[in-house]
Amino acid sequence: MDQKLILHEYTQSGNCYKIRLTAALLGLSLERREYDIMRGETRTPEFLSNVNANGRIPVLQIGDRFLPESNAACFYLADGSNLVPSDRFDRADMLHWMFFEQYNHEPNVATLRFWLGFLGEQNLNDAQRAQIGTKRAAGDAALKLMDEHLSSRDWFVGDSLTLADIALYAYTHVAEDGDFDLKEYPNVLAWLDRVAAQPNYVPIA
Amino acid sequence: MDQKLILHEYTQSGNCYKIRLTAALLGLSLERREYDIMRGETRTPEFLSNVNANGRIPVLQIGDRFLPESNAACFYLADGSNLVPSDRFDRADMLHWMFFEQYNHEPNVATLRFWLGFLGEQNLNDAQRAQIGTKRAAGDAALKLMDEHLSSRDWFVGDSLTLADIALYAYTHVAEDGDFDLKEYPNVLAWLDRVAAQPNYVPIA
Repeated sequence: MDQKLILHEYTQSGNCYKIRLTAALLGLSLERREYDIMRGETRTPEFLSNVNANGRIPVLQIGDRFLPESNAACFYLADGSNLVPSDRFDRADMLHWMFFEQYNHEPNVATLRFWLGFLGEQNLNDAQRAQIGTKRAAGDAALKLMDEHLSSRDWFVGDSLTLADIALYAYTHVAEDGDFDLKEYPNVLAWLDRVAAQPNYVPIA
Repeated sequence: MDQKLILHEYTQSGNCYKIRLTAALLGLSLERREYDIMRGETRTPEFLSNVNANGRIPVLQIGDRFLPESNAACFYLADGSNLVPSDRFDRADMLHWMFFEQYNHEPNVATLRFWLGFLGEQNLNDAQRAQIGTKRAAGDAALKLMDEHLSSRDWFVGDSLTLADIALYAYTHVAEDGDFDLKEYPNVLAWLDRVAAQPNYVPIA
């Protein structure tokens, strides 16, 4: 990387952690800028016009260009490395799991972590409280599907760690913050250990 | 492509249409297998064990391998073509818009189309009905962000059509089925016309 990399982030966010973990595994340096999402610091006019019109973190800044969406930022960092398979089918299959993560996993596992572990159940509004049951079931379905996939393999795609593992690791390894019981998913637990044993691994905080 | 391509799909789904549109623009042939999602045909034991353990369409079959997630399937088909930018930043920026589509656009714009245009409001359950307001606001926010992005450019990334345009086109061009008023987004309307004017374009049905 010949341009300076700046991560606009909120440390506790699993989506931001994905990018730090990817950079660490690749030996890349990131400068970090912290925003307190609890105080709306990603919704200010300055943030919306200068960093991300969508009002969300993470955003990876590369020189003077800004790249939102955690999995896209990981892809930018890892493009051409051994974290992205060189085989065409495997590369698309890695993206399959990354889209699964954002569609089936994050809106359930990460949202319940945020609602129950960060906001606190007593502070939720009625619309949020009404969705806990469906998000619990959908999050458990995502974890079960992961557990079954990992019953016969060490990594989500191919025979080594890829961005699919990093994307899914980020919120899975802290799912108990949202009251998910990972002991129900033994293959997931073993895979979490394999990810954490990678050289240059960094914890979320 | 030297292996046979089979699309497991439900024709009216925008997610399935993305793959047909990508294949058409690339001049690739797809064999098609239709499943009636209204009758649960993607939740049968056969479908779950042979096609997609996640019980969802589309799935792109390539020879004897199966690739779920619409945007991953589009990436497989277009990898190495002019629908995927060769520039590293632009390639990741294309993925940024594709993840935006699955996270901010599809769960709102596509879901309201399905609930209001296919199931019918009178057939929704209470939990669904309680989410219409937030999905309406989030869908309009996604369309507004697209409209602002397109105020100064013809395509989402770079200066020609990429998979980002195909992914976002699929449910945007039928958003009025979910009672979104596209006249509020004139730049989006002009962009829809540009996509539909592409050589080899095919309509959704």
